[in-house]
Amino acid sequence: MRDHSGYIEKERHQAVRDVLDAWEFQRDVERVDVTDALGRVAAADVRSLNTLPNKLTSNMDGIAVRFAAFENGAPDTAAWVRGRDWQFCNTGIGMPDDFDTAIAIEKVEVSADNEHVRLLALPERRGQATTPIGANLREGDLLVRAGEQLTPALLAVLNMGGYTQVDVVKRPIVAFIPTGNELVDAGLPLPAGKNVESNAVMICAKLTQWGAEPLRFPIIPDDWDRIESTLAEAARRADIIVINAGSSKGSDDFTCEILEQHGRMMHHMLAQGPGRHCSGAFWEGVPVIGISGPPMGAEFTADWMVKPLVDRYLGLSGAYPPMVFARMAEAPSFWPEAVQVVRRGIVERDEDDNLVAHVLNAEGRPSLRDLDRANCFITFGRGVDYWEAGDWHPVELRWPYVI
Amino acid sequence: MRDHSGYIEKERHQAVRDVLDAWEFQRDVERVDVTDALGRVAAADVRSLNTLPNKLTSNMDGIAVRFAAFENGAPDTAAWVRGRDWQFCNTGIGMPDDFDTAIAIEKVEVSADNEHVRLLALPERRGQATTPIGANLREGDLLVRAGEQLTPALLAVLNMGGYTQVDVVKRPIVAFIPTGNELVDAGLPLPAGKNVESNAVMICAKLTQWGAEPLRFPIIPDDWDRIESTLAEAARRADIIVINAGSSKGSDDFTCEILEQHGRMMHHMLAQGPGRHCSGAFWEGVPVIGISGPPMGAEFTADWMVKPLVDRYLGLSGAYPPMVFARMAEAPSFWPEAVQVVRRGIVERDEDDNLVAHVLNAEGRPSLRDLDRANCFITFGRGVDYWEAGDWHPVELRWPYVI
Repeated sequence: MRDHSGYIEKERHQAVRDVLDAWEFQRDVERVDVTDALGRVAAADVRSLNTLPNKLTSNMDGIAVRFAAFENGAPDTAAWVRGRDWQFCNTGIGMPDDFDTAIAIEKVEVSADNEHVRLLALPERRGQATTPIGANLREGDLLVRAGEQLTPALLAVLNMGGYTQVDVVKRPIVAFIPTGNELVDAGLPLPAGKNVESNAVMICAKLTQWGAEPLRFPIIPDDWDRIESTLAEAARRADIIVINAGSSKGSDDFTCEILEQHGRMMHHMLAQGPGRHCSGAFWEGVPVIGISGPPMGAEFTADWMVKPLVDRYLGLSGAYPPMVFARMAEAPSFWPEAVQVVRRGIVERDEDDNLVAHVLNAEGRPSLRDLDRANCFITFGRGVDYWEAGDWHPVELRWPYVI
Repeated sequence: MRDHSGYIEKERHQAVRDVLDAWEFQRDVERVDVTDALGRVAAADVRSLNTLPNKLTSNMDGIAVRFAAFENGAPDTAAWVRGRDWQFCNTGIGMPDDFDTAIAIEKVEVSADNEHVRLLALPERRGQATTPIGANLREGDLLVRAGEQLTPALLAVLNMGGYTQVDVVKRPIVAFIPTGNELVDAGLPLPAGKNVESNAVMICAKLTQWGAEPLRFPIIPDDWDRIESTLAEAARRADIIVINAGSSKGSDDFTCEILEQHGRMMHHMLAQGPGRHCSGAFWEGVPVIGISGPPMGAEFTADWMVKPLVDRYLGLSGAYPPMVFARMAEAPSFWPEAVQVVRRGIVERDEDDNLVAHVLNAEGRPSLRDLDRANCFITFGRGVDYWEAGDWHPVELRWPYVI
């Protein structure tokens, strides 16, 4: 057996912060069509090329008039000629030239031949029911700020400002490397004692949701040379590497030793479970995050260990981890003294609109399917304040942070 | 001018409910790869083909032993032969045949040649540190329920259960038809008095986010025959039609009259603004939702008028609209007696974790870019209870419902 006495154990959020602090990278930019830019992060401030409206515009369906005709009281419109004294105007469309004021169609009687009008109300000021040039947007106005994630509305704002393309931060390429002799691809016959590789589809889907571009590797056996060469290939092709399993102490868990030889080890173990056997390292400057193999640990670990790196690459900030205070629905059912244990939980509003948190499936043996309902994490044990039922206590939100 | 006296005015949520109640449609199903199924809605319950583990499995890195050897006290392991009396075992891997109990590697001293062991602790029960067959999943267990939206974790669960494909509800095809003589495609020169068509990219991006498949039509001029033939084409190709602008009373707003002639009109106008000039109709059974042209009205209207139809097609339920009680930050600055006016707002937690709501940019002239920060709607006027600053009042959440 190999010596693991040098393993570096850390609190999980400290482990993430240390990797983030040590990471130096070049953020690349690419130009994409606005129609393809949903969810992308703007690489630079974008300012309007257009002024909108670019002409005095009616904001009513009605008729356009000159306010001068009303300055000395109600005019006699019997002799008014369409095109000379008045004209139809429509919402959002430039006023006919030389007209400055609009009257809503409901305030006008129009003759059957559409050539004559009688007014049921008079305009009270010049420009009434119109929108002046530049009221909606002016050349030079900020459309999108560098670092903003592009929503549907911001895509429209870019179009309004004259843009059909936009510079965005390149999606970070994140390699996912499943390792383990016991793994078989989903859908293939499963020999006795083997297990289905099911983490790749989950982690790659998460990466897509977070705005990264997953680079999925095939299952790599527990073989020193294969793992080493795969890590080297991934470091050439990806901005971030996630290696799944192999960070533990088993006779075939080589990952950490390979990383120690070739890279800079940041941590080998966490002070919390599940997913204690995680690792963080750099391979030629590329962060290599080792997450635990069992699916529930992998799912848990990816959210708070990998997503912060994707966010950092994209330039998305925000308090991490987001915490809320909630009333605890029950007293702890156990209290580990030596470590911290993290459970998935639900935080929701009670009838008084107070937040209440409870551990999900505290009894029984929850499955990954059950735990996926969780919207928070609740931590028990070392370094945590004990609570009784009804106490207020901080809980950590689980992405996408919907309560 | 045409007669609009027959216009059907409704409260906005009633208008949506009436369209939903009258809509009859066939929900189609398609089979997709699990790797492409993120966010899709399962069309049927899916049950596991696999039992996992399919063999007694170690949940430690350590050694496998037979518990029978410990039933009469500590055995002398000096004569133990690897492969006969003990064997290495690794986390998540089937135990060597005929071994039933595991001991963690930390509790074992292994000889330099890996052939002999000395035990630092004894197992207390048969099966210790192992996972029995079927503990994680059994053949026939529910993996995914019909109507569930597939998360990253559920994709993994499908893989575990033996599936690489899954039947999902077809994405509804939603036609988007921008209309108006005043519109010019983004990126083209903008003549005086014309406006940029910027709603298509916004509404199509929203449709994509909601799980629909947008079908974007080019700008259609205000021409009776062109609008009529485009609606007919859209009704053949799409499950839902969104027609933008033309539901008002202007001299060139034909949409509602065309719909009256060919279809069944549900509403022509809303009792709320912005976006009063909305419409709802059916064209040969296909719902046709008319949303207002100005971008802020279009953005507002699409969320609560179009999304419920997409949700209904996909089979996603949920309370609609979702409401929360919040303390109002300020008294109303105006109170329309005749209609309701809806403002975008922010609802957030104060330092006591109470929800507080305020109108976004109550002063000044907010832009679509500013309003996109909103996470709620606050309604003023007819039929609404008046409030003072500090009162609790219901506010409507804005999708994606993140507070």
